[in-house]
Amino acid sequence: MGYNLLKGKRGLIFGALNDKSIAWKVAEKAHEEGAEIVLTNTPVSIRLGDLDKLAEKTNATVIPADATNIDDLQNLIEKGMEAVGGKFDFILHSIGMSPNVRKKRGYDDLNYDFLQKTLDISAVSFHKVIQTCKKLDAINEWGSVVALTYVAAQRTLFEYNDMADAKAMLESIARSFGYIYGRSKHIRINTISQSPTLTTAGSGVKGIDKLMDFSERMSPLGNATADECADYTITLFSDLTKKVTMQNLYHDGGFSSMGMSKQAMIQYEKSFEEPDCD
Amino acid sequence: MGYNLLKGKRGLIFGALNDKSIAWKVAEKAHEEGAEIVLTNTPVSIRLGDLDKLAEKTNATVIPADATNIDDLQNLIEKGMEAVGGKFDFILHSIGMSPNVRKKRGYDDLNYDFLQKTLDISAVSFHKVIQTCKKLDAINEWGSVVALTYVAAQRTLFEYNDMADAKAMLESIARSFGYIYGRSKHIRINTISQSPTLTTAGSGVKGIDKLMDFSERMSPLGNATADECADYTITLFSDLTKKVTMQNLYHDGGFSSMGMSKQAMIQYEKSFEEPDCD
Amino acid sequence: MGYNLLKGKRGLIFGALNDKSIAWKVAEKAHEEGAEIVLTNTPVSIRLGDLDKLAEKTNATVIPADATNIDDLQNLIEKGMEAVGGKFDFILHSIGMSPNVRKKRGYDDLNYDFLQKTLDISAVSFHKVIQTCKKLDAINEWGSVVALTYVAAQRTLFEYNDMADAKAMLESIARSFGYIYGRSKHIRINTISQSPTLTTAGSGVKGIDKLMDFSERMSPLGNATADECADYTITLFSDLTKKVTMQNLYHDGGFSSMGMSKQAMIQYEKSFEEPDCD
Amino acid sequence: MGYNLLKGKRGLIFGALNDKSIAWKVAEKAHEEGAEIVLTNTPVSIRLGDLDKLAEKTNATVIPADATNIDDLQNLIEKGMEAVGGKFDFILHSIGMSPNVRKKRGYDDLNYDFLQKTLDISAVSFHKVIQTCKKLDAINEWGSVVALTYVAAQRTLFEYNDMADAKAMLESIARSFGYIYGRSKHIRINTISQSPTLTTAGSGVKGIDKLMDFSERMSPLGNATADECADYTITLFSDLTKKVTMQNLYHDGGFSSMGMSKQAMIQYEKSFEEPDCD
Repeated sequence: MGYNLLKGKRGLIFGALNDKSIAWKVAEKAHEEGAEIVLTNTPVSIRLGDLDKLAEKTNATVIPADATNIDDLQNLIEKGMEAVGGKFDFILHSIGMSPNVRKKRGYDDLNYDFLQKTLDISAVSFHKVIQTCKKLDAINEWGSVVALTYVAAQRTLFEYNDMADAKAMLESIARSFGYIYGRSKHIRINTISQSPTLTTAGSGVKGIDKLMDFSERMSPLGNATADECADYTITLFSDLTKKVTMQNLYHDGGFSSMGMSKQAMIQYEKSFEEPDCD
Repeated sequence: MGYNLLKGKRGLIFGALNDKSIAWKVAEKAHEEGAEIVLTNTPVSIRLGDLDKLAEKTNATVIPADATNIDDLQNLIEKGMEAVGGKFDFILHSIGMSPNVRKKRGYDDLNYDFLQKTLDISAVSFHKVIQTCKKLDAINEWGSVVALTYVAAQRTLFEYNDMADAKAMLESIARSFGYIYGRSKHIRINTISQSPTLTTAGSGVKGIDKLMDFSERMSPLGNATADECADYTITLFSDLTKKVTMQNLYHDGGFSSMGMSKQAMIQYEKSFEEPDCD
Repeated sequence: MGYNLLKGKRGLIFGALNDKSIAWKVAEKAHEEGAEIVLTNTPVSIRLGDLDKLAEKTNATVIPADATNIDDLQNLIEKGMEAVGGKFDFILHSIGMSPNVRKKRGYDDLNYDFLQKTLDISAVSFHKVIQTCKKLDAINEWGSVVALTYVAAQRTLFEYNDMADAKAMLESIARSFGYIYGRSKHIRINTISQSPTLTTAGSGVKGIDKLMDFSERMSPLGNATADECADYTITLFSDLTKKVTMQNLYHDGGFSSMGMSKQAMIQYEKSFEEPDCD
Repeated sequence: MGYNLLKGKRGLIFGALNDKSIAWKVAEKAHEEGAEIVLTNTPVSIRLGDLDKLAEKTNATVIPADATNIDDLQNLIEKGMEAVGGKFDFILHSIGMSPNVRKKRGYDDLNYDFLQKTLDISAVSFHKVIQTCKKLDAINEWGSVVALTYVAAQRTLFEYNDMADAKAMLESIARSFGYIYGRSKHIRINTISQSPTLTTAGSGVKGIDKLMDFSERMSPLGNATADECADYTITLFSDLTKKVTMQNLYHDGGFSSMGMSKQAMIQYEKSFEEPDCD
């Protein structure tokens, strides 16, 4: 039912937990488009989530790995290449977590050990994945690497906390490594800046429903769903986008280019109305 | 009472109408900081506004000119240099008008003659001012040129209409001419992207009060006033900013770097409340 | 041989002249991907170029039109819809020309009638195409509109002249109309910022070969070709990118995210070498 | 000889080493403009540099501190306030170091302990300084905090390595904390993105001289010097820029807005010339 856009390609997908995950949707679409894939997540996430179900559905191999651990990554990449019978053509990084957010430490009361963990999990892990791949020569020429990010890297959203700084660093890593890996092996590296999405991770963010309402009314096409994000990601893995690299690509129904929409303002104006109680 | 930041400098200020105008405030501050200035506006604006009062207050010369008319500009610049006794050190462009907005033509129903006028008045006039100055060699080395703009050039705000496109072009002219005039005469050219401001022009924009409320709550420092904008403009005219050029500089209390503030969201959430009528 | 990405879709393509044109390549790929298309250009370009050959190859209808003329556009769109049997799903705008560049008027010596032509042809025409489509309800829901642009809209390149300002305005129109047409009909509007390309138009730019050499060495993946640009454009016309709108998308091998590459610097350093004449 | 722009203000300046340092120049100008200041650096930098000479010249107090150490920062801020007799009005962060660069580890061979140090010293330290100030309520309302950064945060420059990612994070911290500290105490936080500068730190970067030559030819006003950067910084500490916050401000002679200048291209073209050996 797909277009065969990834026929004969091999992929490695980080971060699928359950069927709400964007990475889950990407795995499904990649399989539909003809790719052979390896799925990975931390042992605890595999235990808590439904990765095995996804593996069955997509005929994929599951290899547990902590993406902040180089030994785990080496094992994952080596075993992964064995499983799919060759180097990878595409990689998805969909990983992010902030202990400061979880423990409700405000941005002016950060725990710096937590901050280091936020950075290690949400940004440095991306570098580790790519560096380990490069050392093992694990990505085919003209391969494509994508990480998911959020507009908070450019514009402050209250409660997003130290994840904003981690995302800014993540996007910088895409540029920095996009240069290094581009010139040597023609690997392209980009980030997709996705609408707020009701994944299991997203659901935990305080006030996410009202933020999503605002974002929905601000975006002329509405918020982008996880399914739509997967579609878009497939185009970036395909051979049709070979010269797109070092970019942060907004997939957000237009939100990032909006200052104020009529729909959002109409709703906002309601907040000033006097209740009519006659 | 000033700092003498513009002592001995000569300036040309476009666009003061009355004491709500940003250009008016800039003229006052420039005078306070020791500059000698020439004020200009169209004959009709001079008739409708209070420019003569400002001229008296700032010991300035008023020379009428239509900034879209090259002959007028030549006359203005030549007479202006005579009046202040030398070349200019700084120029402020605070000019913008859209017949499409005035005649309530929506963005999907633009009148193209009106659009051409919008562009000519709000963007091309900036090029005309600078080109005429350059041909007449009317700006001293290391002089400073500033135009006022709005974040709508980057992010769409409903009802701002074709002014958004004009402002995008205005900012591009600052870059393009900043290069040309920078390398030959070390003239710097920048734009200031100011908070929505209740000038006579701003007041005409539909729904400006609610937009300003939203902008106020979104900006951690609140909206910037016309007075504060004048202060900032003075720094760009001073000798302390000699190497800042081809930039669009946000003077907006932080609005441009915000995705969502707690204060704006608290207000937004009120719009969903059921009235309590017991 | 394609992926059937545009199966059943109808498109309108502006600006193909000969087989070096990006629009030409897009037409070929769109046909390959299953689309039915209408080709258009000015009568004089049709006479000078090879559009009929392309029409034959892609089984397309040719309808001449001056994209700055509303009557021509109305006729084009109405006849075009008849030819393909329905509303359009995608539109490509690949139009640009500056009389100031052609007549070698420097940026500090612009002829303002020429500037108006530059803007009308290279930017306002995009608005006219979209507005006319909207008035005739000529684009299907979730349709896609793309215009081609260049990084000069953000960063000054000597000799690019008033085309930089026109491209800045073009990109602003994509945002402004992307909002308007997005909220009412879910039409998405984007611009692709392409590497310098040796089209017939590009070849005319003075010093283009050295600029392309620099750009090639700066870009980790090298300059993007017209063929690759067509591939990328197809993804934006497909159903896989439905929530991407109001974006300026760099398709440039990474150039836009580079400050300085090793390869470009090695070449640059050679310029300082003393000739070795022993 | 100054303008009294900082009369009555108190400041804290991190990172002066010797008279080539930007922080050194800022201290001198701040003193000249009427401020009372505290100087700080690590004990080892104080030993290696000339900070005492600067302290004498500017009538300042020196308090050693490792900016990555919270205890040191608390001591510094408390003692600092005692020394100047009140809360601070401005703070300069001019700190950056990468062990990966020093040890010549390429970006595809990073040592992750080193990377953590790069981040801690060059980015997280900025958060620590601000958080500690906020906890101690050590900055007056409408105070100003500035950190120095480089365009590598947006555009990859070869050899700049993991400092690019650190600078991207530094700029994000300015936005994130600019929101938090802005809404509660009206403190503004910005970064200045400065031309490459021949400080002791800058001198160590491989190939810096040729990069500076390129940057000089690309920038219409030439590279900005340390002295000029200090002038600009003073404006951001003054009361004239109260509503500028969460911004990254380029102070670079126009470099950031250039795609290619004629001067740089003329030099580049020389690299292709055949030597003339007659």
